[in-house]
Amino acid sequence: MMKQIPGGVTAAKGFQAASCAAGIKYKGRQDMALIYSEVPCKSAGTFTTNIVKAAPVKWDRNQVESGAAAQAVVVNAGIANACTGEEGMGYCRQTAEAASKALNIPAESVLVASTGVIGMQLPIDRIRAGIQMMVPELGGSLEKGEAASKAIMTTDTKNKQVAVEFEVDGKTVTIGGMCKGSGMIHPNMCTMLSFVTTDIAISKELLVEALREDIKDTYNMISVDGDTSTNDTVLLLANGMAGNAEITEKGEDYEKFCKALNIVNETLAKKMAGDGEGCTALFEVKIVGAESKAQAVTLAKSVITSSLTKAAIFGHDANWGRILCAMGYSGAEFDPEKVDLFFESGAGRLQIIENGVAVDYSEEEATKILSEPEVTAVADIKMGDASATAWGCDLTFDYVKINADYRS
Amino acid sequence: MMKQIPGGVTAAKGFQAASCAAGIKYKGRQDMALIYSEVPCKSAGTFTTNIVKAAPVKWDRNQVESGAAAQAVVVNAGIANACTGEEGMGYCRQTAEAASKALNIPAESVLVASTGVIGMQLPIDRIRAGIQMMVPELGGSLEKGEAASKAIMTTDTKNKQVAVEFEVDGKTVTIGGMCKGSGMIHPNMCTMLSFVTTDIAISKELLVEALREDIKDTYNMISVDGDTSTNDTVLLLANGMAGNAEITEKGEDYEKFCKALNIVNETLAKKMAGDGEGCTALFEVKIVGAESKAQAVTLAKSVITSSLTKAAIFGHDANWGRILCAMGYSGAEFDPEKVDLFFESGAGRLQIIENGVAVDYSEEEATKILSEPEVTAVADIKMGDASATAWGCDLTFDYVKINADYRS
Repeated sequence: MMKQIPGGVTAAKGFQAASCAAGIKYKGRQDMALIYSEVPCKSAGTFTTNIVKAAPVKWDRNQVESGAAAQAVVVNAGIANACTGEEGMGYCRQTAEAASKALNIPAESVLVASTGVIGMQLPIDRIRAGIQMMVPELGGSLEKGEAASKAIMTTDTKNKQVAVEFEVDGKTVTIGGMCKGSGMIHPNMCTMLSFVTTDIAISKELLVEALREDIKDTYNMISVDGDTSTNDTVLLLANGMAGNAEITEKGEDYEKFCKALNIVNETLAKKMAGDGEGCTALFEVKIVGAESKAQAVTLAKSVITSSLTKAAIFGHDANWGRILCAMGYSGAEFDPEKVDLFFESGAGRLQIIENGVAVDYSEEEATKILSEPEVTAVADIKMGDASATAWGCDLTFDYVKINADYRS
Repeated sequence: MMKQIPGGVTAAKGFQAASCAAGIKYKGRQDMALIYSEVPCKSAGTFTTNIVKAAPVKWDRNQVESGAAAQAVVVNAGIANACTGEEGMGYCRQTAEAASKALNIPAESVLVASTGVIGMQLPIDRIRAGIQMMVPELGGSLEKGEAASKAIMTTDTKNKQVAVEFEVDGKTVTIGGMCKGSGMIHPNMCTMLSFVTTDIAISKELLVEALREDIKDTYNMISVDGDTSTNDTVLLLANGMAGNAEITEKGEDYEKFCKALNIVNETLAKKMAGDGEGCTALFEVKIVGAESKAQAVTLAKSVITSSLTKAAIFGHDANWGRILCAMGYSGAEFDPEKVDLFFESGAGRLQIIENGVAVDYSEEEATKILSEPEVTAVADIKMGDASATAWGCDLTFDYVKINADYRS
């Protein structure tokens, strides 16, 4: 039995968190967080595919690939430490060294993550002071996890966390996570930062594989604005404290873990899409009846990234022509004259197109369906059995407002 | 000597135009145009690469590829005749037949073009009545051309035309054109419609080649919103009335024609980008020092389509990190730590980045440069001698407003 439980990064056994107002950029709020495991963890990570990689991305990739145990993550919001050259890399090392000293763990077991403005250097004195403030405050309560999930926000309007519990080998295993969006979100990987912690005992090899496979259907299927960040990072830490016999090969237990990880990642990814900068609705696009998964993915992503479609969703306008148009320029082959299209939400389900042309639907009913906070478009291309789902959001006045003067 | 002259589609000898208020969708304005040549023309055309192709695109592609002479183009604004199935194709044929009868020319010499809402059927009776109204009004004056360029507008705020004159073989040759944007503009080809007329005598083969090559540097280098329309069409008609000896092989005369065609097409393309839906500025991106043209094109297009960069331009914010970020996720290989970046406009030129990190520039001066109606970002990637220029526009509140309820 898989069940959702309260909490986030502190839900799994042995994980603690703390946060503080380090004064990096924001006033009157916390802007640094620390995640800590009582024992060393196996780590897995996926990072931005952008050629321009922020310093913390390079640091963490080295950490994860080195195979060294991980035990802490230091996160700051406000400054991304991207396009900062050698100086920026130096600040990653200095951050890890400060945490290493304060926590009495090796510097190579400290991961770092940053989100915010590109091109500014980190105020390293404030980062060091933040670490000093946070270490004595570490704790495993739900409140500590919640505060950490708030401290890492930039333009996010809601903190984002989730936790699930299931059984492996007679032991209760927990996976919890927190993440932040909410602009420059087109993960491939995306500044999306996501931190997932679990107490499962699992080999590093399988932990890495489970994450690598799962992001394809979760974080890599969301887009807020089509801009793939320089800082996108997903970190997965497993400390083994659930006490199950370590999972070292694929089988029922591994599948259970993958399924739970998928719930955590999909939930976090959808929370990011649904809280995209300025957005008023989560926009889900399902392509069904595809010839292949790749084809379905290409089509679904093309629709969620179409500015015109996103603006129509904001207007609660059943402008299906824009959806068909975005499918048409995606690069995937299909027959437009075979497409069926449906809109669905909490307010109902309505067929809009049959075989490429509009059916006689009620615009009023369509608008009602599209006025919900979560709306779905389902396109059946009638070529096979493959499918894919992508998540985005609407394009609003506030997106423009937020991004016309983000730096000021 | 190449010189720009007043006018548009009626500038070249033997070309006439008319327009009318056919009542297709808009109230209180003209919404149909007719272009007519006194003698049959050779035609070339490039059309949307979207798999979902509007009926008039299919009709025109057949016309252009058949090799039949062309003599008239019937254009309507308001309804795109896209996703309209067999019924929509029938309306293309009926439109051509009505024009054929009224003008006493073969139906296969009539081209058609539509722009507007996807999925609605054309009111064919109004189209027929419009043709009846326009034929007696045909004329070759500048005013007729200007009125036609206004009649084809949808969300455009300005009509768009240009004409140039040059000499070939001792004869004066003219090329004139008109086009419309201004949303769903990401030509590949792009509803961009562009109509270019010339009195040059040239073989069909060279006319087609000249257009095919030129669109790569002009229409295909602009983007308003990344959405490649179902209706994008560029038509080029040459009626030979300049009286030059027909150009049948490449050489000095062909090069002169290509150069003039490039001026016409680039001017029209920039007018479309600079009048993108809701925009306040033309945003030009030049990539220099590239290893290959293809690399430069990929980088330039990635920057002009970045929503975050476009919003920053709207805010007059020198947010160079977003430009570097968009270059980074473009798919092109380069070394971010070698990039120099400059902003320039009528208000000056300013270096922002040297070798991937910010120089100590004045934010105030940068904002001044970015507050002009035409702004340029130049990125030097220091790998070679190739370059490319792309044109886009800023992302504004009005873009969202226009597209949240375009259909109503």
